[in-house]
Amino acid sequence: MATEFSQPYRSSPLLRTEIGDVLRDLRQHQGRTLRQVSADARVSLGYLSEIERGQKEASSELLSAVCGALNVPLSTILREVADRVSVLEGVSIPDSIPEDFLDSQGVLAKL
Amino acid sequence: MATEFSQPYRSSPLLRTEIGDVLRDLRQHQGRTLRQVSADARVSLGYLSEIERGQKEASSELLSAVCGALNVPLSTILREVADRVSVLEGVSIPDSIPEDFLDSQGVLAKL
Repeated sequence: MATEFSQPYRSSPLLRTEIGDVLRDLRQHQGRTLRQVSADARVSLGYLSEIERGQKEASSELLSAVCGALNVPLSTILREVADRVSVLEGVSIPDSIPEDFLDSQGVLAKL
Repeated sequence: MATEFSQPYRSSPLLRTEIGDVLRDLRQHQGRTLRQVSADARVSLGYLSEIERGQKEASSELLSAVCGALNVPLSTILREVADRVSVLEGVSIPDSIPEDFLDSQGVLAKL
């Protein structure tokens, strides 16, 4: 199954694009500027801007700092990113992942 | 709330650590070696090993390639990572995120 993964380089959604979109949406929803959030996170405005536009990979430390500045847990951001990625992948996953899907993917259901 | 985010640099879980753990767990669950998966993903064995140990950030392209090699959607990996991060954060999120939690975090519930 999952023929959409036969060409991972060409057709898979990129993590940095989705992370950037979620961070920007959260920031704008809070009515804050790039300048405010970058200052709170102690990262450069230019770097944060590139992250939001999906032009640079966010390091784990930067992501933690931006999560802190936005006062949103990293897990919440990752869940939102996962939801968007699953839509792009054409993988229909409601709230939980069916056991048989996990089994078919060779994924440990009880890690 | 969420006092665990008052020190984002020191106490937050790092994304690369959790991604590495999930990738390694999936690979081992499939009974495959680093050599096999790195060959299928067309990445160097050393690089993949460092990713699994959380010593290097995985680029979005590498992550897509490894997902393809493991035949697991990126969204599935991200959900597993989010679950583990939420435990480390002490954020209890069952299958879906309560509306009032999202509101309190300033997160768009309907993005």
